[in-house]
Order: sequence, then C-alpha cells, then structure tokens
Amino acid sequence: SKLSQQEIAKTDDHVLCLETNLDDATGQQLAAAIKGALELGAKDAWAEPIIMKKGRPAYKLCLLTATTQQELFASFLFQHTSAIGLRVHPLQREIMERKLKKVKTPYGEVGVKELTYHGVKKFSVEYDDLMKCSQKTAEEPEKIRLAALQEIENKGE
Amino acid sequence: SKLSQQEIAKTDDHVLCLETNLDDATGQQLAAAIKGALELGAKDAWAEPIIMKKGRPAYKLCLLTATTQQELFASFLFQHTSAIGLRVHPLQREIMERKLKKVKTPYGEVGVKELTYHGVKKFSVEYDDLMKCSQKTAEEPEKIRLAALQEIENKGE
Amino acid sequence: SKLSQQEIAKTDDHVLCLETNLDDATGQQLAAAIKGALELGAKDAWAEPIIMKKGRPAYKLCLLTATTQQELFASFLFQHTSAIGLRVHPLQREIMERKLKKVKTPYGEVGVKELTYHGVKKFSVEYDDLMKCSQKTAEEPEKIRLAALQEIENKGE
Amino acid sequence: SKLSQQEIAKTDDHVLCLETNLDDATGQQLAAAIKGALELGAKDAWAEPIIMKKGRPAYKLCLLTATTQQELFASFLFQHTSAIGLRVHPLQREIMERKLKKVKTPYGEVGVKELTYHGVKKFSVEYDDLMKCSQKTAEEPEKIRLAALQEIENKGE
Amino acid sequence: SKLSQQEIAKTDDHVLCLETNLDDATGQQLAAAIKGALELGAKDAWAEPIIMKKGRPAYKLCLLTATTQQELFASFLFQHTSAIGLRVHPLQREIMERKLKKVKTPYGEVGVKELTYHGVKKFSVEYDDLMKCSQKTAEEPEKIRLAALQEIENKGE
Amino acid sequence: SKLSQQEIAKTDDHVLCLETNLDDATGQQLAAAIKGALELGAKDAWAEPIIMKKGRPAYKLCLLTATTQQELFASFLFQHTSAIGLRVHPLQREIMERKLKKVKTPYGEVGVKELTYHGVKKFSVEYDDLMKCSQKTAEEPEKIRLAALQEIENKGE
Ligand code: NI
Ligand code: NI
Ligand code: NI
Ligand code: NI
Ligand code: NI
Ligand code: NI
Ligand code: NI
Ligand code: NI
Ligand code: NI
Ligand code: NI
Ligand code: NI
Ligand code: NI
Repeated sequence: SKLSQQEIAKTDDHVLCLETNLDDATGQQLAAAIKGALELGAKDAWAEPIIMKKGRPAYKLCLLTATTQQELFASFLFQHTSAIGLRVHPLQREIMERKLKKVKTPYGEVGVKELTYHGVKKFSVEYDDLMKCSQKTAEEPEKIRLAALQEIENKGE
Repeated sequence: SKLSQQEIAKTDDHVLCLETNLDDATGQQLAAAIKGALELGAKDAWAEPIIMKKGRPAYKLCLLTATTQQELFASFLFQHTSAIGLRVHPLQREIMERKLKKVKTPYGEVGVKELTYHGVKKFSVEYDDLMKCSQKTAEEPEKIRLAALQEIENKGE
Repeated sequence: SKLSQQEIAKTDDHVLCLETNLDDATGQQLAAAIKGALELGAKDAWAEPIIMKKGRPAYKLCLLTATTQQELFASFLFQHTSAIGLRVHPLQREIMERKLKKVKTPYGEVGVKELTYHGVKKFSVEYDDLMKCSQKTAEEPEKIRLAALQEIENKGE
Repeated sequence: SKLSQQEIAKTDDHVLCLETNLDDATGQQLAAAIKGALELGAKDAWAEPIIMKKGRPAYKLCLLTATTQQELFASFLFQHTSAIGLRVHPLQREIMERKLKKVKTPYGEVGVKELTYHGVKKFSVEYDDLMKCSQKTAEEPEKIRLAALQEIENKGE
Repeated sequence: SKLSQQEIAKTDDHVLCLETNLDDATGQQLAAAIKGALELGAKDAWAEPIIMKKGRPAYKLCLLTATTQQELFASFLFQHTSAIGLRVHPLQREIMERKLKKVKTPYGEVGVKELTYHGVKKFSVEYDDLMKCSQKTAEEPEKIRLAALQEIENKGE
Repeated sequence: SKLSQQEIAKTDDHVLCLETNLDDATGQQLAAAIKGALELGAKDAWAEPIIMKKGRPAYKLCLLTATTQQELFASFLFQHTSAIGLRVHPLQREIMERKLKKVKTPYGEVGVKELTYHGVKKFSVEYDDLMKCSQKTAEEPEKIRLAALQEIENKGE
C-alpha cells in the first residue's frame, strides 16, 4: 500500500532509497521496472536522466522501500533489469497526517485527502478520481477539482 | 546567510537534504518554492527532472538546510507546494576555507573569494558583481573576470 | 494507427510536429495529455524537460501528427492542457519498410517486424508481446527476445 | 512585448526558432542569456539539457524571435554567449485569441486572459498577479486563482 | 570536417537535422551512435532526455548533416541503432566567420579561433589543446586559457 | 579498479557518494572531471541536469569513492572544477557476486561476467569487447552479444 493511498496518523517513518545507474537498459525496460517495483510493494519508484562514464546517456533508477525489504528489491532489480549493483540510502520521511474523505461534486464523487502537519492544513483531490469523473462528464479534470475544493470550503472545513 | 556569501574558516559541517518528488506541481510553483526557500534561509535549493510512476514527467525539489531546521522547511514545503511527504538525508559537507576580498579592475570593483583546502588554492569572482560592472561598462562579464584574475596574479597572491 | 503497429511500404512521408512549452502544467496533466493525444490518433507524443524564463523547471510537450490534423490537435492541446499557443514544424519522415510476422518461441508467439531500407535489414520484436509471454512463463523478456531472434536466424531469413 | 502579455486577435503567425548547443557555457551565462534575450524582445527563451560529443553534459539554448530579427539575435548570442554558430527553424505558431480583463477577488485584483480557439474557451490567471496578492494577504496563490475562476464562473462568462 | 575545426568565410549554410526517439536503445548504444555518426562525417551529434509513450524514460538522438547526406545517415541510424524511422528538419545555419591561429603561452602553444560576425568579434581557445598543455605542465586548463587570451590582448588584436 | 571490471565475492560494501552542484562549470569541464575522477580511482562518476537558484541550468556532479578517499576526491574536485563545497553521502552497496570468463563466438572472444545474488543468476557481456569484435567483423554488437549468450546457454551454464 503506497503512501498516496493510505490513511496515516504518524508523521515520521524510516525507509530505504535504492539507486542504480543503468547505461545498458532500454526505456522499455526502465518503464517495466518502475511498474513492476510498485506492484511488488515499493513505496515509490522513478527514473532520473544522467550522463555516465564514456559519455553514455543513461538513467538512474530509484526505489523507495520499507527498511525490511532491501534484499527483496535488490533481488527484483538484479533479476528484472541489467543492474549488477545498487546503492542503499537509509532515509527518514517526514509526512503529513492524512484523513481520507469522499466529496460530492456536480460531476461525481471524488476522494480527497485532508492533510495536516504542525499547523499546516490542506486538501488534495485524487487525480484518478478526477479522470474518471472527467471521462463520464466530458468536463475538464481541473474544473472538477475546483468544484471539489469549493465544496469543502463551503462546508467550513 | 548562504554558503556562497560567507567567510568560512572550518571546512566541515553537517546539513540536511530534504527531497520531494512532485508530479502535481507546475513550473511556476517550483520556481516560487526555490526562491521562497532561499529567502527563508535554505543553504541551497534546486530541482531535478524525473519520470515518476504512471509515466509522469515530474521534478524532484531539493533543499539543503541546517540540521535544526527540518520542521521549519517541512512546514514550508507542505504549505507552499503540493508535497505531502518528503525524504530527509543527513549529510556532511566538505567546504573550502574562504576569505572575501575586493579587487579593482578597469571596469569597476568586484568581490573575490580566496579559497583554500589542504594545499589547493583558487579564486572565485562574484558573478553578480561581474554583471553589475558589465552593465555599467558594456564589457562582457568574462572579460572583467579575466581582468580581476590577472590583477590578483600580478599582486603575487 | 501508429507507426510502430503499421505495415508500411513507402519510406517517405510528411508529418507535423506540434510543440508547446508548459510552465503551468503538472506531471499528472502532461502524462494525461500524452495518453490522450495518442488515443486521438497522434503518430507519437512525448515530453522534454526544459528550463523556461524566470527560472521555471518545465516541460516541452511534442506531438507528431498527420499534416491534415493541425487544427484537431491544436484544439486538443488548448482544451486539455494549459497551452495557449503552440509551434508547428512541418517535417518529412524517413522510415524503414516493414512487414509484420508472427514467430513461435518456447515461451509463446510474438510479433516481429521485418524492417528494410536501402540494403539495411533488421528485425524488431514487439515489446508488448514479450511482456505477455513473460507474464505467462515467468521468463525474462530479454530471454524471449533472444529466442525469437534465434528462431528467425535459424529459418535463414 | 511577449505573447503572454498581449491582446491578440489573429491565431496564426510566423516566427523563428534559433538554437545553439553549448558545451562551453556555464549555468550563470545561460541564465543571463535567457534573461538578456527576453529583455531584447525575444518572444520566448529556454534551455534544454543535452549530451554532446565527447560525453559533454551541455545545454541547448533556444530563442523564439520575429522573422525579421534573425541577425539581431544571432549577434546577441554570438556576443553574449560562447556560441559560434546557430540553427534557424522557420516556424508557424498557432495561438489562441485572447482578451485581457481584470477580476476582483477577496485577496485583490488579478489579470485574467480569456482565451478562445475554434470552439475551445478557457481562462488563464496571471501568475505574477497571484504572487503579488499572495504576498499582501499571506494566502496561497492557488487559493486566489480558485477565487478568480469562481468569480468568472459566477458572472456567467 | 566538423564546424569547430574549420576555417570558414561564409556565414550561412544549409543543413539537415535528423531526429529519432529511442525507447529501445541503451546508453551504451547511444554513445556509440554519437561517436560513429561523427566519424562518418556528421557535423554534430547529440542526445536529449525525453519521456515517451507508456511512461518510458528515453532519449532523442539528433544528427546534423549536409543536405546531400540524408540517405547516408538514415542508413547509418537504421543499421547501428534500434531506430525504425526518423524525422528530417531542413535548417539554415548562421555561423561566425573564423580564422585559425596559433598562440604561444608559457604552458605551450594553443589553437585559437578568431570569430567575427557583423561587428561582433571574439576568440575561442581550442579545448583539446588546453588539455594537452595542462597534462604536460600540470597547470589548470582555465589558467592556460587566460594566458592565451591575455597574449592575444597584448598583441592588440 | 572499478566495480564493472572486478571479480567480487562479497556482496556488500560501503562507499561514499560525493556531490556538488555546479552552475559555473562548462560541459567541457564536467566531462573532463568525470574522466579524471575515474582515472584517479573513483568507483563511478556521473552528472545529472538540475535547475539551480536564479534560474540557472546546471549539473550536479557525483562521484562514488572508497570510504577512505573523501579528502583525496574533495581535493580533486576543488582543484579541477569550480566547486567550492561538496556533500558527502555514506552509502552501502548491494552487489552481485561475479565470476569473469571468456566466451568464444564466431566473431571473436568476449569477456562475460557470471553474476549471482540469492538465487538470481545472469550473464553480462563486456560492451567494449563487443565493440572490438564488431570493428573487426563489421557485425553489429547486438548480434555478437546474442551469439555469446547463446554459446553460454548451449554449454548448459
Ligand atoms: Ni538526480
Ligand atoms: Ni512533528
Ligand atoms: Ni543519502
Ligand atoms: Ni581537512
Ligand atoms: Ni517528400
Ligand atoms: Ni529537447
Ligand atoms: Ni524544425
Ligand atoms: Ni530511399
Ligand atoms: Ni501561415
Ligand atoms: Ni483557425
Ligand atoms: Ni550576415
Ligand atoms: Ni545477501
């Protein structure tokens, strides 16, 4: 279960960032590795363009994982990409407390995260919900997002 | 007070690198966050292009802060960007000892940092000073930089 | 119908490249625009990281379209992204002649394009087919690709 | 006068894109060139990360100019950057018709562009105005943008 | 013979820019293609990070060639990379007039290009020569470049 | 001796990642620093495009070094680049066990690494060997790589 879909009360946790520089992987393989790592339970996965030795245009592949999953994801990367080594950053995460709610708009219902951290409070509307409502109603996602935020404001939250 | 404007004697210090991956921020917001973080006292701030899950072209926003300022800048990022979580790298910095001086050139006076580290010595001319002299004299900044470095060499420093 | 899925005999055609620099779009919106443009019939769609005025980390969104579809895709971009203008490059494309075939491997059947151009001949295995066979057999896509290319070579093609 | 600040009735115009690959310029110089080109009247200016020959991490500098200004901006680039050559793309631009208006929000007045193109209609709030209102009222720019768009909708536009 | 090593009198010429988006090439192959294209006579060659369909982290490979060499370099790309199509931009180049000269410095002799264009005049020191002198004398390349430019200025050129 | 050329039995080691953001270095200098660091014994070296303060298009230069070499490489960076400070990440590396072998193909002999990690096993063919065989035989490197992998499979390894 990924950060963006969880109800979370504590605002601090510890994770690993696994990184590997790949000058012998294709874009097809990189995209498959990002998708596969998320399906296997990585908290996040992304790629960064880099320039490696011998002038090679390459990508750095990065995974964010639980501290207990170093070997699981090292095995994943070694099996499914051309990586033969990887670097491990132990990191702390600072995260906002979150409560999940449903908000009704003229275009359909959308999920909203109420986010708080030491006096900061904000709302984040689920993008996938916006896209679903948008496909049903042919209204732009931004318009639906505005409607949801307006609805929250009207309720005095 | 940022590193590049300080007179510094010790060559080692400890800092935090705060990072957050943003697929729901605009370039306008990212540029404002970089500027705002520096105004609030961040030691450095920058953005890196990344490719996030679901094929999203995104940016990683990075802040370098004092070790005592984790909550200050977490609050800043949560309030002023779409971030809902961030990663914290505790880092050590290796920095050159620096002395600030003023150097006269035919195009005006410019600030110069004399930088030393274990037998390495070099000089760095303040870019903003070069730009000011350039605007007054219509001479290219590079030409003025050369004149300043020539002046330093002539003085036998 | 996109280039990569077509049987093509002629090796020259004319297309438009539509480009727009976006400093007020999010990564979520950019990914949705790339997907939406392809669904609407764009021949290709991609994004490039750029640095815009006022220090804004941004992306250039690029679409490749038929020469008759300038207004269709301009309308698409104006409606579904924050773009308020776009640049049009009329381009010629040089493309390899292609014949589609099916190749049997121990891991399942995969599509292969036989590609020729003025004496150059090569084969390209469909990545999506490799992934499907890989999911069924738990064998790595690269291994399956090798098997398909080996099969083609054995047949003396 | 740049595109984003103009009231424009026609939706087609012709421009030049001047490009130069720079492996011998610094980031300080690139940022100064982008700023300087815009001050000299370029319609747009940006940089793209590229990897040049001999494995050099570099940037492509791009200017959008009037068709009559090729020599003016070639001279600018040759004088103010390390460029010794540049490439010229003659381009057509497709742009939305725009009308400028002022909209009152609880946080101050902001400029808004009403944009139309073949049946597409949208509104774009001036980011610099949002920032000014934000600084006066300590309200987030996004909140002010929402208020402006709400105001426009309420007026039935 | 590439632009950067030529003595050139005219300041205008016509070239082709060949571009291909590669999501199935590795960094090793991209670096080899850049090197190979230059050896075959391309005027320039470089790569740009892009994000392609299906969220693939990829690179755009770009070649600058003579207008008569479209088929030569299309064949090169089709044979030596995974490209199956490419886009052709006919471009004009604006280039500075250049005279080559040798300049003596305390660290050895270096090549210098005297560059002129409509009243703009500047000098560019050959980087490879700087590196050679640097390796012989253990002096930094920047220091040697300054010495060369100083020498030119002293001669009243 | 770099990771990619070593026979390695243990699968865990500790390294430093040294990073510095450079807005006052050119691409020529960055490429020279990557090459120079590797010659001095860095385990890896690469550059990442970033956007720094004041809208500067820049690069982050990264070195991977032994834990005992912090001062050596800090001195290298301070002497050979414009860096005046750098950040130090102590990292752990997870690496595959490797055995080096030679494999004969119809196009010449190539080095192959047999790589293992907790039940994962794979083979990586030396790219430089592929290029050498390719230059001698005019066969594509990919074809030679396939032949080597086929040879390994036939031997039942
Ligand atoms: Ni990065
Ligand atoms: Ni707290
Ligand atoms: Ni770290
Ligand atoms: Ni020390
Ligand atoms: Ni034609
Ligand atoms: Ni680009
Ligand atoms: Ni063009
Ligand atoms: Ni032909
Ligand atoms: Ni026209
Ligand atoms: Ni029209
Ligand atoms: Ni002229
Ligand atoms: Ni183990």
